[in-house]
Amino acid sequence: MTNVSIIGLGQTDVKEHWQTSLRHLAWYAIEAALDNAHINKVDGIFVANMLAGPLSGQQHLGALIADFSGLRGVEAVTVEAADASGGAALRQAVMAVQSGLMETALVVGVEKMTDLVGSPVTSALALALDADYETVHGMTPAAVGALLMRRYMYEYGVQVADFAGFSVNAHANGAVNPLAMFRNKLRADRFASAPLVADPVTLFDAAPTGDGAAAVIVTNYERAQDMVPQPIRIAGSAIATDTLAIHDRKEMLWLAAAQKSAARAMAAAGVSHDDIDVLELHDAFTVLAALSLEAIGFAERGEGWKLARDGEIGRNGRIPISTFGGLKARGNPGGATGVYQIVEVARQLRGEAGDNQVSGATIGMAQCLGSAGATAVTHVLSK
Amino acid sequence: MTNVSIIGLGQTDVKEHWQTSLRHLAWYAIEAALDNAHINKVDGIFVANMLAGPLSGQQHLGALIADFSGLRGVEAVTVEAADASGGAALRQAVMAVQSGLMETALVVGVEKMTDLVGSPVTSALALALDADYETVHGMTPAAVGALLMRRYMYEYGVQVADFAGFSVNAHANGAVNPLAMFRNKLRADRFASAPLVADPVTLFDAAPTGDGAAAVIVTNYERAQDMVPQPIRIAGSAIATDTLAIHDRKEMLWLAAAQKSAARAMAAAGVSHDDIDVLELHDAFTVLAALSLEAIGFAERGEGWKLARDGEIGRNGRIPISTFGGLKARGNPGGATGVYQIVEVARQLRGEAGDNQVSGATIGMAQCLGSAGATAVTHVLSK
Repeated sequence: MTNVSIIGLGQTDVKEHWQTSLRHLAWYAIEAALDNAHINKVDGIFVANMLAGPLSGQQHLGALIADFSGLRGVEAVTVEAADASGGAALRQAVMAVQSGLMETALVVGVEKMTDLVGSPVTSALALALDADYETVHGMTPAAVGALLMRRYMYEYGVQVADFAGFSVNAHANGAVNPLAMFRNKLRADRFASAPLVADPVTLFDAAPTGDGAAAVIVTNYERAQDMVPQPIRIAGSAIATDTLAIHDRKEMLWLAAAQKSAARAMAAAGVSHDDIDVLELHDAFTVLAALSLEAIGFAERGEGWKLARDGEIGRNGRIPISTFGGLKARGNPGGATGVYQIVEVARQLRGEAGDNQVSGATIGMAQCLGSAGATAVTHVLSK
Repeated sequence: MTNVSIIGLGQTDVKEHWQTSLRHLAWYAIEAALDNAHINKVDGIFVANMLAGPLSGQQHLGALIADFSGLRGVEAVTVEAADASGGAALRQAVMAVQSGLMETALVVGVEKMTDLVGSPVTSALALALDADYETVHGMTPAAVGALLMRRYMYEYGVQVADFAGFSVNAHANGAVNPLAMFRNKLRADRFASAPLVADPVTLFDAAPTGDGAAAVIVTNYERAQDMVPQPIRIAGSAIATDTLAIHDRKEMLWLAAAQKSAARAMAAAGVSHDDIDVLELHDAFTVLAALSLEAIGFAERGEGWKLARDGEIGRNGRIPISTFGGLKARGNPGGATGVYQIVEVARQLRGEAGDNQVSGATIGMAQCLGSAGATAVTHVLSK
């Protein structure tokens, strides 16, 4: 159990924000989070971002975003762990507050992936893979997803259509989230016949990239009680890593880092699987959702897909996932995604999730992955 | 005073490591630091890097370097604050250990800036400037240095030759450091007539880019006493920021973040200027050395250059700086530079600095800057 609580949440919608720059997106989310916490300053900012360098020609976001958000001078750095950057940045904020060296810390995840000349997003995303052994051969994140999915189908005797439930659930939840990138429902029978992205990954299987920013403000537990009516405790927090290249893993279908970080965060929080009312996981591809459920321990190996088939992942199911649409329907703004997950779980625990509410949620978990689980960050939140 | 001490140091030489990849450089420094601390594992890794994305096609260094260094699975993230990344990563490690959430943390700064096709280093370095208001107009770090130097000369009535002492001192110290990039002495009378990089910044004024890696291992104070004969206490630690674009500053010649972070780190450490025996500062350009001395409080405004003129910055002077050559002669491997500074100050306090030793050094300070002081990170170390 950490001594850190969430007191402020902010987010923009996820979409193609063609009229809004990277710094504006960050500012909007920060402003919303400050308003939500009823404060106007913090002691430090942790920026989660993975692609501003290659896509916006801009690094050094800490100082830039601090200044542009009206917080000039404040301590600020960027934290990067590919698509797990958001969770990783929150982990730094937790340590900062827990150390006593910072009283109030703000995490902002921001990513600007559209409105670019040409189509450099895929090559930018591939910076998260092993440059010397994967990218050099033309591997992309979708290709990694495809290899894992094909292997999963071979090992466990399942078909493309068996993964449909993950996307159907994500879109059903995204459809009632006003901030989601895709608000259309998905028909299961269309899933397997959608255009291929990287065989067998289809368009309805892969999460879309999008622009967006989300922010979370944390302070110590005692102080949080006096500041807001519903502070959310960060009960557990953990990062683990694995090999970057998937061919270096002894078991390609086992997300060792996801298992480790989940186990550590749950142990720190003192919770078991049955205690968890809502789970945001890294459904960048449906196979990653299945593998995450297995690694975290909600399903046996090879059986994660059955939770989707059997309707166990819906808002009224055994373990609701992607409750605001997940990466698939809310959208996947890279380094910001992990912060969106935290905002979403916290809203569930506050009972502020509106049409996306999981009834009676008191404990939630968020896990984001960097590439195919080379980094895994898990946070357990409690009411 | 933090509760964190340094127990291990490692570094490679700084040069054009054409035969050595980014991951190998990091590994060598990590291995040396682990050996130095007499341990073979840590609880977490903080990678300091600013340019692996644009120059090596590789982000997500946390997982990659953890695995490649034989520490697969360990918690690991990248911390970026442009050329202040090294100091910023140490600050995260300090908070991690101080929080109790990590017992032993390793910081590795690594940068691979040579052996590239074409000459993309300058445009990569410009990612640290304001993309929308500086870089878009062709600004580069050297151009920013030139603007500051020209303004300094105008405001304070000094000439190019008046800055020579900084480079002469750096090269004198680099000449006796076997790991330095430049080991030649510099003649003061050649300084002003060297080829121009960006008028009035000359080749003998600007620090060279180079490849290198440095690592520092920290643990809590009590544990450190039992582990190594000479633990070095991290007495103070602070980050402050300023506007990214220098035209946004009310006073272009005042490094507000450098002042703030130095004052905070010194207050935390309970030390005054007279207590500081050795100072590593961010001499990427001589004008930054002068401005840093003024911001930190070793000289009045407009008089930082006099410390160089009067020999006060030499190893026997009032405030020895760049004692192993500084950015100018040891070399400036970007995001790794801040970690080199910490290694060097710690070696001074251990009395292990060899020909570079400042006699009787017991308290030292290191300050690194991101671009022209948009980020400033200061650490005070004590014996």
